Amino acid sequence: MEDKGISQAVISRLPRYFRYLGELKDEGIERVSSQELSDIMRVTASQIRQDLNNFGGFGQQGYGYNVGYLYDEIGKILGLHKEHNLIIVGAGHLGQALVNYTNFERRGFIFRGIFDADEQIQGTRIRGITVRPMRELERFVKENDIDIAVLAIPKSGAAEVAEQLVACGIRGLWNFAHVDLHVPDDIQVENVHLSDSLMKLSYNLASRD
Amino acid sequence: MEDKGISQAVISRLPRYFRYLGELKDEGIERVSSQELSDIMRVTASQIRQDLNNFGGFGQQGYGYNVGYLYDEIGKILGLHKEHNLIIVGAGHLGQALVNYTNFERRGFIFRGIFDADEQIQGTRIRGITVRPMRELERFVKENDIDIAVLAIPKSGAAEVAEQLVACGIRGLWNFAHVDLHVPDDIQVENVHLSDSLMKLSYNLASRD
Repeated sequence: MEDKGISQAVISRLPRYFRYLGELKDEGIERVSSQELSDIMRVTASQIRQDLNNFGGFGQQGYGYNVGYLYDEIGKILGLHKEHNLIIVGAGHLGQALVNYTNFERRGFIFRGIFDADEQIQGTRIRGITVRPMRELERFVKENDIDIAVLAIPKSGAAEVAEQLVACGIRGLWNFAHVDLHVPDDIQVENVHLSDSLMKLSYNLASRD
Repeated sequence: MEDKGISQAVISRLPRYFRYLGELKDEGIERVSSQELSDIMRVTASQIRQDLNNFGGFGQQGYGYNVGYLYDEIGKILGLHKEHNLIIVGAGHLGQALVNYTNFERRGFIFRGIFDADEQIQGTRIRGITVRPMRELERFVKENDIDIAVLAIPKSGAAEVAEQLVACGIRGLWNFAHVDLHVPDDIQVENVHLSDSLMKLSYNLASRD
């Protein structure tokens, strides 16, 4: 698929469409109008039409959207029609929580390996996956066709580990370290900065005092 | 502080300014120009000036910004000059990871209580905090002046728990459940939808194939 220059704002909303359509599908609903979708998602119908038009529409005047078809198509756009092989670097509390979160697997994101620099934790198993030393990283990534690495480590070591991962051929980084990573343009980084999110909540509370 | 109608996009960027200014401060740097800040943060200098002008500026022509002062002021805007008392609902892997993440405490977000509906885990301790049954929620929130509740539970029970929390007087919800919560307008919700974030990464990988 080519990059069609679609804004990150639109892309950020796609998983939410996918989630709501999945729920409608589970309820056995076969078709939905943009107005009905608007009511349950609490965004305007025109926003929905605009967003989906970025990918060529999908709706039919007077019919609305076919739920199953739209769900599948958005899934394909999101790259969910094929499996992703993941490793996680950092087997601390957060790393363990992520490995134990089975919802990712349901969407085709499979944790294949766990790495940690701490010798104490190497060799232990989390959900059946052995924690490996960092020196095994490169070979493991190549042999297991890993495309996404999750960084669940403190900010201090994150830049160095990111560099290592990119050198191994990783193309996607899901970064939980509280630092911005500077990587080549063809590497995709998605940050989850938990502290930033909590501060935003704090701001919104303070601004309403 | 009144709500000055500042866009959520600007607010989303404030924690990042705060983080970079904190790092400059730690390095003993006393003043910084918007151009220098632009270089290290990789956003335009004009974006920085515009963002900070929402809060009345802070910079002086020809001098730039006083790092310590700007850091403190942004901290105040973010509501970080006072402590927040938090509870967490859900003592599973994610809940445990969050309670064990000491960085939140450094910013004044203090976990006071942990709640879980599962009797098996009630009474156990995480970082010295006892896991309590849900029936103790209301009294605990009132007696401990709790303003933020973290939802680290599956989506199925989230709506009901959110309602309970709001009824207890909680004003801020940090929601990790993969569902949109519908709460009164005066309740602040900040979502961390991990699956959505991972799907966005997957999209960005797929669109460059």
